[in-house]
Amino acid sequence: MSRIKLGMVGGGTDAFIGAVHRIAARIDDRYELVAGALSSTPERSQASGEALGLPRVYGDFKQMAIREARRKDGIEAVAIVTPNNVHYVAAREFLKRGIHVICDKPLTSTLADAKKMVKAAEASDALFILTHNYTGYPMVRQAREMVAQGALGAIRVVQVEYPQDWLSVEQDFKQAEWRTDPERSGAGGSTGDIGTHAFNLACFISGLEVESLAADLQAFVPGRRVDDNAHVMLRFAGGARGMLWSSQVAPGNENALRIRV
Amino acid sequence: MSRIKLGMVGGGTDAFIGAVHRIAARIDDRYELVAGALSSTPERSQASGEALGLPRVYGDFKQMAIREARRKDGIEAVAIVTPNNVHYVAAREFLKRGIHVICDKPLTSTLADAKKMVKAAEASDALFILTHNYTGYPMVRQAREMVAQGALGAIRVVQVEYPQDWLSVEQDFKQAEWRTDPERSGAGGSTGDIGTHAFNLACFISGLEVESLAADLQAFVPGRRVDDNAHVMLRFAGGARGMLWSSQVAPGNENALRIRV
Amino acid sequence: MSRIKLGMVGGGTDAFIGAVHRIAARIDDRYELVAGALSSTPERSQASGEALGLPRVYGDFKQMAIREARRKDGIEAVAIVTPNNVHYVAAREFLKRGIHVICDKPLTSTLADAKKMVKAAEASDALFILTHNYTGYPMVRQAREMVAQGALGAIRVVQVEYPQDWLSVEQDFKQAEWRTDPERSGAGGSTGDIGTHAFNLACFISGLEVESLAADLQAFVPGRRVDDNAHVMLRFAGGARGMLWSSQVAPGNENALRIRV
Amino acid sequence: MSRIKLGMVGGGTDAFIGAVHRIAARIDDRYELVAGALSSTPERSQASGEALGLPRVYGDFKQMAIREARRKDGIEAVAIVTPNNVHYVAAREFLKRGIHVICDKPLTSTLADAKKMVKAAEASDALFILTHNYTGYPMVRQAREMVAQGALGAIRVVQVEYPQDWLSVEQDFKQAEWRTDPERSGAGGSTGDIGTHAFNLACFISGLEVESLAADLQAFVPGRRVDDNAHVMLRFAGGARGMLWSSQVAPGNENALRIRV
Repeated sequence: MSRIKLGMVGGGTDAFIGAVHRIAARIDDRYELVAGALSSTPERSQASGEALGLPRVYGDFKQMAIREARRKDGIEAVAIVTPNNVHYVAAREFLKRGIHVICDKPLTSTLADAKKMVKAAEASDALFILTHNYTGYPMVRQAREMVAQGALGAIRVVQVEYPQDWLSVEQDFKQAEWRTDPERSGAGGSTGDIGTHAFNLACFISGLEVESLAADLQAFVPGRRVDDNAHVMLRFAGGARGMLWSSQVAPGNENALRIRV
Repeated sequence: MSRIKLGMVGGGTDAFIGAVHRIAARIDDRYELVAGALSSTPERSQASGEALGLPRVYGDFKQMAIREARRKDGIEAVAIVTPNNVHYVAAREFLKRGIHVICDKPLTSTLADAKKMVKAAEASDALFILTHNYTGYPMVRQAREMVAQGALGAIRVVQVEYPQDWLSVEQDFKQAEWRTDPERSGAGGSTGDIGTHAFNLACFISGLEVESLAADLQAFVPGRRVDDNAHVMLRFAGGARGMLWSSQVAPGNENALRIRV
Repeated sequence: MSRIKLGMVGGGTDAFIGAVHRIAARIDDRYELVAGALSSTPERSQASGEALGLPRVYGDFKQMAIREARRKDGIEAVAIVTPNNVHYVAAREFLKRGIHVICDKPLTSTLADAKKMVKAAEASDALFILTHNYTGYPMVRQAREMVAQGALGAIRVVQVEYPQDWLSVEQDFKQAEWRTDPERSGAGGSTGDIGTHAFNLACFISGLEVESLAADLQAFVPGRRVDDNAHVMLRFAGGARGMLWSSQVAPGNENALRIRV
Repeated sequence: MSRIKLGMVGGGTDAFIGAVHRIAARIDDRYELVAGALSSTPERSQASGEALGLPRVYGDFKQMAIREARRKDGIEAVAIVTPNNVHYVAAREFLKRGIHVICDKPLTSTLADAKKMVKAAEASDALFILTHNYTGYPMVRQAREMVAQGALGAIRVVQVEYPQDWLSVEQDFKQAEWRTDPERSGAGGSTGDIGTHAFNLACFISGLEVESLAADLQAFVPGRRVDDNAHVMLRFAGGARGMLWSSQVAPGNENALRIRV
């Protein structure tokens, strides 16, 4: 039972989700992090890699993809934990060299990139894995199973919500900064960051596809350029209806994902 | 401290909310029920009145209004607890004779009747009281007060829902029957019956008025002619946004009114 | 369906539980309060009776028992809602005249009085009813039924607690005053006032009798002469074990009765 | 930031808590497990060590202590995750060689061993750490801090409970087996296994010491030789009182540790 050799793109010392990925990778002891291109500049990537005691540190993800692919003991998989606009350009380099990609959601920051991502994944023998991580929770699995087995009958209504409060006021630290910058996060603010999880769960558990929707997006914090609150009415194939609320300006909600079917 | 002499229109032996009104009227001991026109036929009204031990029973509400208005010890107030289409025609008779009206929501079953009700109430010296009863709850009062005092700052989002499950399948008892008959209940099903409470609370607590809305109404039970589920996106004056969900086909919800501001 | 004519001993204007009895008696409309000896002095009894609009007010309970028993339209039942030391002396007068007694718990303030109460009840044709009111709750009834039907198997452990916080500091209003005076409340403080409910529920739901117990009673508030906190270990016939906690000095607990079987 | 080199005594493939220790040690990435004597027989220890990919596997803990102490890159700390009767004999070997010991609770299975453990710890320069792990939880730390700062005033009552249900019926797997064998677990069953956590928290959070107690221990499962349910009344120095309930036969409770102060 040898560990899977893992690389990481993004996740430097001032990032948030990279450290979560590293903890998660250690919990069941099936991964070993051996290489990284942890920041957008070679200097900071090097500093972050040293702080983590990484065996191999690269100045950028392309260099890492090329060199790791050549090594006999090179990484077998890479976790891409960068701002959204880097997802496609990084994933492409690893997919085309046969290295599996674990990519954070949302898929990309533009529809054009998303379409290219699909092509790159289809053209590769390597796996492309999008971190809709809540689908791995036992309760979520059981809920999906119960729906699939008909325990709830025909599904009529799906109510899903994902409120947070950490962006209720303007924030200037790194995670807030890129998430509210449409160049890096894409058009979606709360919708891309957490609404995507809610939307994914609504479909994953109900087993239904959304046919149409009506959304009311709002940026409540003055000067914010992407939505920080979204109300969405959903119509599923087959007639079920639903509502989705994602918000990052909902005081009292740390990370209050909730679904009712 | 004499008790207020009360009459009742509707609320016969096979009705639901009339009995609730009578219990509520007894709790603080300020009312005394002395007259009633409890059903739509004189015979059933008589039978219901006798079962309750009412001093004076009338065959119809108009007769009750006329005679009680003439008595020195006649009723001072009347509770109208009928299907929605009777609200206006009954209230009119009492208002024009100076008898206070406590009327169940929704106001009427048609917009035309609602407008006439407003005129009748304005033309009368008697009070016209609509039973948006949740506004009397201490927690609701406190919430409204907190918003009014600015304890929550400027209001951004109002999430309100009122799910029930008793109409999840077809029902043939009296309360279900008229509530799902557009001739008696009006155009709204769940929206008129419970959505009206949710809507009222959203405005009452937030102190805001709704400027526009988008709604997706659905009748899930086969053959049902009014909505039994409603999803509504709200835009309040001043920029706040909200969602309202009313449903009578939401299993596991007995009477689950809930609001977040 | 005529109403039961009810009298009341205790429950004057500055009392607490008498008003609760009166509300409860009105809720299902089966009682009519027609007479009272509401306070320990004739003057205050008269004033309280007038404030309530009672048809017949008496200066003391003995007078009420005698006169009501002689009337054709006299009371059929009496609610005794006095401090504990009055329970027996009042109940005796009504029981011996064939008037049903609804008596507040605890039974009496002394064991001697309790034994006399049993004799008086046995000697009378009238009913003697002790207000272990929680036994009337649907959930309690269902729990008892589930145990009786074996749904829980043989009972091993019963954890019951009844914490309140209103006596956490010294109080000088009427209800606090007599409850903390051993002359009127009896030897038990929290045990008599609320522990009795907890103890009753433990036996009522489990269907078991307590064979022996070890208790640690404490008066935390300086100067208090009866317990305000009690820890009790219970041994039931048949081998089940349990714990009972009653407290009136447990901040954050308004009336937090809770049982687990 | 090099990782602490860790060894483990106990925690072979059919054990429970050893795996939890290993996960915990990986989460913050400060430990590296490099050696183990994972079972009571050399063969099973070897097999377990190989399954985990351990660099160095020993047939017994004494051998491990001797050899690791001699290595320059030997373990700096050892986790002892064996049945209770092994705690002292294993800890002694490492303490006297200057290797830090992380030892599972309860301290030992006999009072005599406990006293010897204290001496061994005092005689060593190495740390002896007992895994009262709940004391590390942020909420527990905050609670302790609040009490220490007087936010709750003088403490009167401590209610603590730790119910589980996994031993409600006889179990024959390894963890159940030794926990219900007084030779290996010691005199305490539920008290030693989980009551010790509850007791520790009661003292840790309140900052109080228990002066005396009265306990009612019971073995409900037929044939069980140690307690599976315990009710304890506590008297703390300074006058506070408390109750402790530990149970492993309380259906519906997976691991329901709870404390109120």
